[in-house]
Amino acid sequence: MSNKQTVSRYGVWEISINVKTEEIAKNPFDTRFKGVFKKDNRTQTAHGFYDGAGVFKLRFMPDAEGEWIYRTYSEIPSLDGLSGSFICSAPKPGNHGVARVSGKHFVYDDGAPLYPMGTTCYAWIHQPETLRRQTIESLKNSAFKKIRMCVFPKHYDFNKNEPELFAFEGNLADGFDYSKPNPVFYSHLETCIAQLHEIGIEADLILFHAYDHWGFSQMDRECNHRYLKYLTARLSCFPNIWWSLANEYDLLRHLTEQDWESFAKIIQEGDYAGHLMSIHNCFGFYNHSKPWITHCSIQRQDVYKTTEYTNEWIDEYQKPATLDEIGYEGDIHWGWGNLTAEELMRRSWEAFVRGGYPGHGETYLSSDDVLWWSKGGVLKGDSPARYEFLMKICEEAGGIDYLPERSPWDIAVGGIEGKVYIAYLGFSRPRNRSFHSDHPYLGRSNLPEGKYKVEIIDTWNMTITDCGIMAREDLHVELPARQYMAVRLTVI
Amino acid sequence: MSNKQTVSRYGVWEISINVKTEEIAKNPFDTRFKGVFKKDNRTQTAHGFYDGAGVFKLRFMPDAEGEWIYRTYSEIPSLDGLSGSFICSAPKPGNHGVARVSGKHFVYDDGAPLYPMGTTCYAWIHQPETLRRQTIESLKNSAFKKIRMCVFPKHYDFNKNEPELFAFEGNLADGFDYSKPNPVFYSHLETCIAQLHEIGIEADLILFHAYDHWGFSQMDRECNHRYLKYLTARLSCFPNIWWSLANEYDLLRHLTEQDWESFAKIIQEGDYAGHLMSIHNCFGFYNHSKPWITHCSIQRQDVYKTTEYTNEWIDEYQKPATLDEIGYEGDIHWGWGNLTAEELMRRSWEAFVRGGYPGHGETYLSSDDVLWWSKGGVLKGDSPARYEFLMKICEEAGGIDYLPERSPWDIAVGGIEGKVYIAYLGFSRPRNRSFHSDHPYLGRSNLPEGKYKVEIIDTWNMTITDCGIMAREDLHVELPARQYMAVRLTVI
Repeated sequence: MSNKQTVSRYGVWEISINVKTEEIAKNPFDTRFKGVFKKDNRTQTAHGFYDGAGVFKLRFMPDAEGEWIYRTYSEIPSLDGLSGSFICSAPKPGNHGVARVSGKHFVYDDGAPLYPMGTTCYAWIHQPETLRRQTIESLKNSAFKKIRMCVFPKHYDFNKNEPELFAFEGNLADGFDYSKPNPVFYSHLETCIAQLHEIGIEADLILFHAYDHWGFSQMDRECNHRYLKYLTARLSCFPNIWWSLANEYDLLRHLTEQDWESFAKIIQEGDYAGHLMSIHNCFGFYNHSKPWITHCSIQRQDVYKTTEYTNEWIDEYQKPATLDEIGYEGDIHWGWGNLTAEELMRRSWEAFVRGGYPGHGETYLSSDDVLWWSKGGVLKGDSPARYEFLMKICEEAGGIDYLPERSPWDIAVGGIEGKVYIAYLGFSRPRNRSFHSDHPYLGRSNLPEGKYKVEIIDTWNMTITDCGIMAREDLHVELPARQYMAVRLTVI
Repeated sequence: MSNKQTVSRYGVWEISINVKTEEIAKNPFDTRFKGVFKKDNRTQTAHGFYDGAGVFKLRFMPDAEGEWIYRTYSEIPSLDGLSGSFICSAPKPGNHGVARVSGKHFVYDDGAPLYPMGTTCYAWIHQPETLRRQTIESLKNSAFKKIRMCVFPKHYDFNKNEPELFAFEGNLADGFDYSKPNPVFYSHLETCIAQLHEIGIEADLILFHAYDHWGFSQMDRECNHRYLKYLTARLSCFPNIWWSLANEYDLLRHLTEQDWESFAKIIQEGDYAGHLMSIHNCFGFYNHSKPWITHCSIQRQDVYKTTEYTNEWIDEYQKPATLDEIGYEGDIHWGWGNLTAEELMRRSWEAFVRGGYPGHGETYLSSDDVLWWSKGGVLKGDSPARYEFLMKICEEAGGIDYLPERSPWDIAVGGIEGKVYIAYLGFSRPRNRSFHSDHPYLGRSNLPEGKYKVEIIDTWNMTITDCGIMAREDLHVELPARQYMAVRLTVI
């Protein structure tokens, strides 16, 4: 065998072809160009894209080791009929492939678990480089496994700075040509996504949102579709992409269900890797029963009761849930952005014991208008350290489910039946609590017979206190009469 | 005119008649005996009652000044046909008469306002005298205007001590004769109610509850009816009585709607003074639309979202609401009894700005098992002082209503249209907040044009900070980025 091209599993195979100007159609972004990739009996189709300056590219992320062969198809002769093969080798360390749904939880392609507790920096890619580097550094030092971020920049409170690059040709002063994606911007976006992948963070990429003054939220159907095809062609090769059709889809009032369904279809057709896909609400949910929606991406539905509904949502849709907007730690004027770290963590723990994956955000007023939730930068709050602690508890347990049969009326208990039970006490702050079956009401949480390792988890002070081994009949803990405690009962 | 008997308005007129044993029926408590009282064109009927040892009594609380005449009717000759007259004089200082409903609020007979923020000591009358004296002293020094208390003793966690007196003849060892009320107990109960009246506290008297091991919750219909007739005959003369048919009526599973309706009817027939009447739930509400229910007496419906529903309940039933169980400050194992004072006060303020009257309770573990919520004694928590502060704010404003048109999505605003607006920020802790109309969302709270006296109320630290006078267009306050703030805007 010759010295064949090698690509690591979940890595990117790419070819780049210069096309003469006269061959290119009026709008090169409308060029039909695709590659069909084959290994054994499996075939996958990736779409190529115009990268500007006469260059077309075709990318592919192989998901199986061994030899792949390919052939291209295009209306442009010099893009058509290219063929060859490459070897897919073992993945690079830390590359677990694409995140998938597994029951009501998530798992990577290679079977590694993924607990996608995330954070939000909507417009971090639209900030200057120094700030972006800071953001990546902050994320690297955090426990977050997912970030919500927008393709388009954001025009909103504390977000009035103009980005350097836009997703389309043009500028605010002269206007944009929404039919012409800007390859330089996409190359920048890809660098950002790759940086996130390197530090193990999923890019929950928001494709549309309403906080706009550039017109990106008001494009016509043709431009929207071209945009999505282009995006999918370029980005499907990134293992850590999640497609979030929208942030607050229902604020884009001119878009109909038909529009959103067509968007989902375009992405599904373009994305051979089948990345996770969802759509996030402001008011009511989009119908999360739709088969293309892989998981619930949720903004809380009520100012006061938020993640306490997590288990109901998971039950209703029979899909895992990321709680992508449950209020942020901060002190701005908006009610969603001035929670204490204690309240954000209370909501996050409620989400966790109810089987969901909570999402962080931070909105502290800053004289430089750099608020983490939108621009990234430095994390200033008290919740990130508590998320790290929560992640540790989650990793020790594995993804847990809400256990209604183990939950008394006043405490949510999550766990894995027969293995571990985590009772979260939230704002309750008793001096003691029993988990045995003697009490007629506590007995509702009747646990399986056996012996348990009993621990008190102080979710705020981030301590775990060993209370020893107890039989089911003796389960009783003395507590410090402070809020934000949990009791972990591990079957031994 | 002769030197006629004089009774002060809302005071008690009483006659006492010795009846010979041979005249008394088999069960003297079944004796028919009533008095008809007449002033000008108004007639009221009060029922007499057997007070033991051959003595029958008839009581009447006159509600109008001037001359009243009366005549008695009875199947017992020596109780029949007694007649006479008395003069009703001005009320004694501090006696405002009976509490009434006025729209969605409360007012005394004499027009004095009543803001019935209350507390709960279910079984305080069943405790030893020293403790009872302590309870009265504590109440006297508090801002509470109402107390929830039971006729029957309570058998429950931290409440295992037997009372000295019971509402029926007999004792736990030998059994009770549920057909024979115990006048000695009632005399004791009356002393307690009179003590409360003296210190300006309404007795929200609970007639049935399920926390029982004496059989009082399981009496047959005849005994229940006799009990209620007796109770009404004795107690209707107390201005400060409220009838609470039950605490958690739905835990008395053997009683049907027909039973409760018959109870209400008996009380209405016996209570010429028309005291307030309601019925309190454990799970779902009793149908608060029933005409005999004067106000909503509410146990919160959800562990997490509690008084935030207050305005919805008031709207639904078009009646005022007392939030009679919203969780207690304490540290016991039960989820309803281990709130921080902060959380109880947050709930109480939410109730207040939403037009309701919150209720306090305290459940701190104590080596002597004296927990305020049940036995009374000494108030140990941090919430009573905050209730006093809340009462001051309430008295300054008058009873306020929730103002949906003035409430942005993230803040509840209550007030009196055109006079005063109180925005409660709860767990939100912004550095600043605008109340002017420039902002598209804050503008929802668009206030009437004019000038406002602006104050920041720190509901936890109990301070009021004057921010000066501002025009509607300039309403903006700098806040301390702490939880539990309110902003009061007074029209000038």
